[in-house]
Amino acid sequence: MPVNQQILLDNRPEGEAVESNFRLVSTETPALAEGQVLVRHHYLSLDPYMRGRMNDSKSYAQPQPLGEVMIGGTVGEVVESRHPKFAVGDKVVGMGGWQEYSVVDGDAPGMLRKVDTTHVPLSHYLGAVGMPGVTAWYGLVKIIAPKAGETVVVSAATGAVGSAFAALAKARGCRVVGIAGGPEKCRYATEELGFDACIDYREHPDTKTMAKALKDACPQGIDGYFENVGGYILDAVLLRTNAFARIALCGMIAGYDGTPLPMTNPALILINRIRIEGFIVSEHMEVWPEALQELGRLVGTGKLRPRESIAEGIASAPSAFLGLLKGKNFGKQLVKLTP
Amino acid sequence: MPVNQQILLDNRPEGEAVESNFRLVSTETPALAEGQVLVRHHYLSLDPYMRGRMNDSKSYAQPQPLGEVMIGGTVGEVVESRHPKFAVGDKVVGMGGWQEYSVVDGDAPGMLRKVDTTHVPLSHYLGAVGMPGVTAWYGLVKIIAPKAGETVVVSAATGAVGSAFAALAKARGCRVVGIAGGPEKCRYATEELGFDACIDYREHPDTKTMAKALKDACPQGIDGYFENVGGYILDAVLLRTNAFARIALCGMIAGYDGTPLPMTNPALILINRIRIEGFIVSEHMEVWPEALQELGRLVGTGKLRPRESIAEGIASAPSAFLGLLKGKNFGKQLVKLTP
Repeated sequence: MPVNQQILLDNRPEGEAVESNFRLVSTETPALAEGQVLVRHHYLSLDPYMRGRMNDSKSYAQPQPLGEVMIGGTVGEVVESRHPKFAVGDKVVGMGGWQEYSVVDGDAPGMLRKVDTTHVPLSHYLGAVGMPGVTAWYGLVKIIAPKAGETVVVSAATGAVGSAFAALAKARGCRVVGIAGGPEKCRYATEELGFDACIDYREHPDTKTMAKALKDACPQGIDGYFENVGGYILDAVLLRTNAFARIALCGMIAGYDGTPLPMTNPALILINRIRIEGFIVSEHMEVWPEALQELGRLVGTGKLRPRESIAEGIASAPSAFLGLLKGKNFGKQLVKLTP
Repeated sequence: MPVNQQILLDNRPEGEAVESNFRLVSTETPALAEGQVLVRHHYLSLDPYMRGRMNDSKSYAQPQPLGEVMIGGTVGEVVESRHPKFAVGDKVVGMGGWQEYSVVDGDAPGMLRKVDTTHVPLSHYLGAVGMPGVTAWYGLVKIIAPKAGETVVVSAATGAVGSAFAALAKARGCRVVGIAGGPEKCRYATEELGFDACIDYREHPDTKTMAKALKDACPQGIDGYFENVGGYILDAVLLRTNAFARIALCGMIAGYDGTPLPMTNPALILINRIRIEGFIVSEHMEVWPEALQELGRLVGTGKLRPRESIAEGIASAPSAFLGLLKGKNFGKQLVKLTP
């Protein structure tokens, strides 16, 4: 039985999350029962939603239980199988959690999916051709539903969701403006990800200067906004919205650590007849096949070339995750779990 | 030529609107040109949206120009006509403004509409079977789109919009909960308007106590909310929303006088996957015929019996309007312009 290193949630954050909220343990992988599959994880995905799960508060999902393996998406390889549909060597994507191996019931719907790595590298099934990519697709296609020529904006622009958003919106003929932290990320956004413009929020740290920067970058106003961040950036975007703008609310990372961040002037929703919609991509499984097909095609044809930040080894997951929450990653944050 | 008393906007409010923002003048009605109609107004409608027009700020509509007759809906009678479609004695609804007479181009689309007063009293075409009624209809039917058994809530519950909302929502099998100011209005809401419950916001003057009152009145949570008010009531409603709740944003009267009122915790939009949509009923003329038909039927069959607050004479319009903004009216606020 291989030894399985795991990261558990040991205790809940008070304010900012810290490394000591997590605990590393080693166990043996159990023997498989009939119908089960043992997966060796190659990569663990780190995503902002995990911060929300660490709190013990009402949300769309149950809190992460204390003392259990942290939730997380994984890609890997079947190393042992007692299920007829899975063979040793199959590449699979699942929700294996922050650990090196997982034992999965091969019949549980949606828990384990075989993937083809001919045109798409395995790790991208955690990013552009996975949950973050579908998240971008749903917000853009189903909520913002832009017409060609409209201007759409996304915050956390160079992350896994933002970079997929850019490729999808360019494919629909939109002007795409990103918001990211630092000149390097902004250069990457315009030079490699296809953004028409990118605003460095560090240079525009308040509503007024951000609204001015948005005015310059969006001379025709904003028709659609994909929100990953919240706080003053949302306030500034609202000031620049056109009539009938649509806002897909996917994340409010700026408020995860404590006091909720207010929306300063919700009357703008009325004044500009805006539609705001919060969504969770896992509640819209019906769109995944169509979305994954388009995303796979964009990656396969080189129109979407996502960058990855890769931490090495399961023990590095907590610090990599805390860095992600502060925007230290560059592109999709992964943890590599094989040598 | 009859003398026409008019109320002009003389100067813009600084903070709260006051009577001296308005000015009463007398003019002679002009001679009609070919195609024009002279209407003697029986009633002027007073509505919260007018407060927004008094400000010189960006909004969905142009500000009310200074020195001109205040905008407003009117019902009346044709007293002179040089248009073949309108005859002396016709009862008509239009946007005649705060004055006793108006001269209207009979061909201008949507400016003047003949109405039938057989089953519906003329004044109701400014309320339940007019713009406020259609406003309630649009927010309920097109945005909230409730299923039977769902719980819907409306603020300013006993006003023209709120009372129509209650009748429309009861007709769809909803539990309908109102929010109004004072025990008399709350009693009227439940005893005459068909509300299942009504919360007196004066007894619940902050988010916490209002959220508690909503929990009691909405034991199954809130599926739809029609917002006329904004401020802490919206904050409290958000705390009690069910997953996939819909909020129709029609008015933010609480913030009209000055500093915008924030939304304290917009992350709830994401947590509960809420859809919020601002709307202006005049931009959805395509629904008016269907909506007016249902509203006329509800009034004609006695299922919607709206109350009216009637001020006498054009000179009383400013004080009646300021009272409306403070919730002093009981039901639809009108000004009677004929003896």
